[in-house]
Amino acid sequence: MNTEIKIFVPATVANVSCGFDVLGFALDTVGDEMMIRKVSQKGIKITKIIGQDLPLETHKNVAGVAALALLAKTDTNFGFEIEIIKNIKPGSGIGSSAASSAGAVWGINKLLEGRFNTTELVQFAMEGEKLASGVAHADNVAPALFGGFTLIRSYNPLDIIKIPTPNELMATIIHPQIEIKTADARKLLKENISLKEATKQWANVGGLISGLYSNNYNLIGRSLQDYVAEPVRSTLIPGFNDVKKTCIDAGALGCGISGSGPSIFALSKGEKTALKVAEAMKAVYDKIGIEYDIHISKVNKQGIKILDIK
Amino acid sequence: MNTEIKIFVPATVANVSCGFDVLGFALDTVGDEMMIRKVSQKGIKITKIIGQDLPLETHKNVAGVAALALLAKTDTNFGFEIEIIKNIKPGSGIGSSAASSAGAVWGINKLLEGRFNTTELVQFAMEGEKLASGVAHADNVAPALFGGFTLIRSYNPLDIIKIPTPNELMATIIHPQIEIKTADARKLLKENISLKEATKQWANVGGLISGLYSNNYNLIGRSLQDYVAEPVRSTLIPGFNDVKKTCIDAGALGCGISGSGPSIFALSKGEKTALKVAEAMKAVYDKIGIEYDIHISKVNKQGIKILDIK
Repeated sequence: MNTEIKIFVPATVANVSCGFDVLGFALDTVGDEMMIRKVSQKGIKITKIIGQDLPLETHKNVAGVAALALLAKTDTNFGFEIEIIKNIKPGSGIGSSAASSAGAVWGINKLLEGRFNTTELVQFAMEGEKLASGVAHADNVAPALFGGFTLIRSYNPLDIIKIPTPNELMATIIHPQIEIKTADARKLLKENISLKEATKQWANVGGLISGLYSNNYNLIGRSLQDYVAEPVRSTLIPGFNDVKKTCIDAGALGCGISGSGPSIFALSKGEKTALKVAEAMKAVYDKIGIEYDIHISKVNKQGIKILDIK
Repeated sequence: MNTEIKIFVPATVANVSCGFDVLGFALDTVGDEMMIRKVSQKGIKITKIIGQDLPLETHKNVAGVAALALLAKTDTNFGFEIEIIKNIKPGSGIGSSAASSAGAVWGINKLLEGRFNTTELVQFAMEGEKLASGVAHADNVAPALFGGFTLIRSYNPLDIIKIPTPNELMATIIHPQIEIKTADARKLLKENISLKEATKQWANVGGLISGLYSNNYNLIGRSLQDYVAEPVRSTLIPGFNDVKKTCIDAGALGCGISGSGPSIFALSKGEKTALKVAEAMKAVYDKIGIEYDIHISKVNKQGIKILDIK
C-alpha cells in the first residue's frame, strides 16, 4: 500500500456558455500541486499551503472538509496530512476551491486503493464547494475529477457524464485582476427565465454536446451562446464585450465567462489560434489598464495526474 | 430527368420529453404515401387525397403551400401534381401536417435533381407547418426530412443537426382517439419558467444527446424527463400518468407526450420490450374505454424513402 502521493490538480472552467450549472471542462497546464501523506494519527491535517493565504484549520479549509467527508465513510484507524502548492488564485473563476477539494479526495482515495468511484469522490468534494460558496455545486469538481468535459445530468441522484473532447480543442483563459464573489454573481441571476430563451439555451447545449462527440469544431463554436448568465454577469467584468469580440475576430470558436467570472475563456481549434486569441485578449486589458493572468491550455482529458507516488 | 416519384413519408415524434421545441425523431413503419408528378402546367395541383378529408385547394393544403414555397425559389416553366395517401391522422400528434409538407418538397426536389439541400427543404416545409398551426416550427419536418433524431439548434439562421440513432432503439406510440388542438396545448405553457427547472431541462437534453451518440440506452432513459410541457399538457390526456407508469414498469426506457399530444410515445431497447410496452399502453385505454391506434416502430434513420421513380 502506498503512503504518499504527489498530484497535479487541474483548474476548471464551469458553465461553458450554454451549459449553465451543468457543464465544465478541465485545463491541462494550469493547476495546483498537492502532497498527501498517510499518517498514524486519525483525521485530516493541512500541514502547509504555499502560494496563497488560506486557512490551515481542517474545518475551515475546503480540502480538509472534503477529505473529512470521505473519511466519514470509512473506518480507517489512520489519517492523512495534506500539503498544497496553490497556483490557482482563489476568486479567479477557474475552480480554485474545487481543485483543492477534488485533489484531496482523489489523492486520499488513491492511497486507500481506490475504494470509492469517481462519482462518489465528486460527492465528497462537493462538501468543500459548499464551504467555499454556500452551494454544494459540482460543475468544477466534476471536470477536475473526471477530466475532459463533464455534464452533470442530475444532482439527485448524482449523475455525471464524461463527454469526449476533440483532440485539437484549446482553451485560452484571461483572469483580469478584479474581484467578483460567486454569491454576488449568483444574486444577479433572475429566478425565472422566458421559455423562449430557455429553449434556445437547451438547443445550444444539445449542439455543444453534439459538436464534442462529432469533432465538429464549427458546431461547438456556434453553440457557445448563453442567454442566461452572460447577459447579466458580463456587466461585472470590465471589457468583457470587447474581449469577446476580439477573440472571435482572432479566430476563436467561442468565448464566455468562466464559472461566475471574472476569468473569461475562449475555445479554439489548434494552438496557433489559441495563441492569437491570447494576444487579442491581452490587448484589451492592456488598453484598459487592468492587470491579468493569461493561460493557454489544451483541454485536459485525464483530470488529476500523479506526479509521484511511494 | 425523372417525371414521377412515389415516396413513403414518415410520421414523427417532436419534443421527445426534455427536447421541447428542439428535438424530434422519425418513425419507420408509420407514414403517408405520396405520388408527385411533373406536369406541363405551372404551379401545384393536389389531385387526390385518400384516407382523410382534407382540402384539395393548393393554398389551403399544407403540401400545396410548402411546394409553392419551394417553386417560388425556382424559375421552372412546368409544375407538379401531388396525390396523397394519408395514413397519419390529422391531430394525432405524430406530425401529420409535417409529413405532407415534407413529402411534397422532398419529392419535388428529387424530380428537380436535388437542387436544394435538406435544410432548405425544411425551410420550405415550415411554410406548410405555419398554415397548419400558425407557427412555422421545424421539429416534425426536420426529422421527416433528415431521418433519425434531429436537433434544431437555431431557427435564425436555421441550423439542424442530425444525431445518430442507436440500432436497437424502438418506439411505441399510442394515439388515444381524443382531440387536442396544438394551439390549445401551446396556451397551457407558461411564458416563463424557473431557472432551476430550466437547468434540469438542459441537463437532460445534454444527457439524451450524449446517450444517443454513445449508444447508452440507460442514459437515454434517464434523460427522458420534461419539466416544461409534460406537467401541464399531460392534464389534457386522460390516463397519461397511468400509461407512463405502466410503460416504465414494462421496461420502457422512458415515456412522454408526442409533440403536443394526444399521442404518447415510449422508447425501448429492442422489439420485445417495445411489444410489451404496447400491451401495457393498450391495457390502460382498454380499461378507461377510450379507442386508440397503436404503432410499434424502429426509429427511422433514413427519413423519406423512394417507393418508385420513373
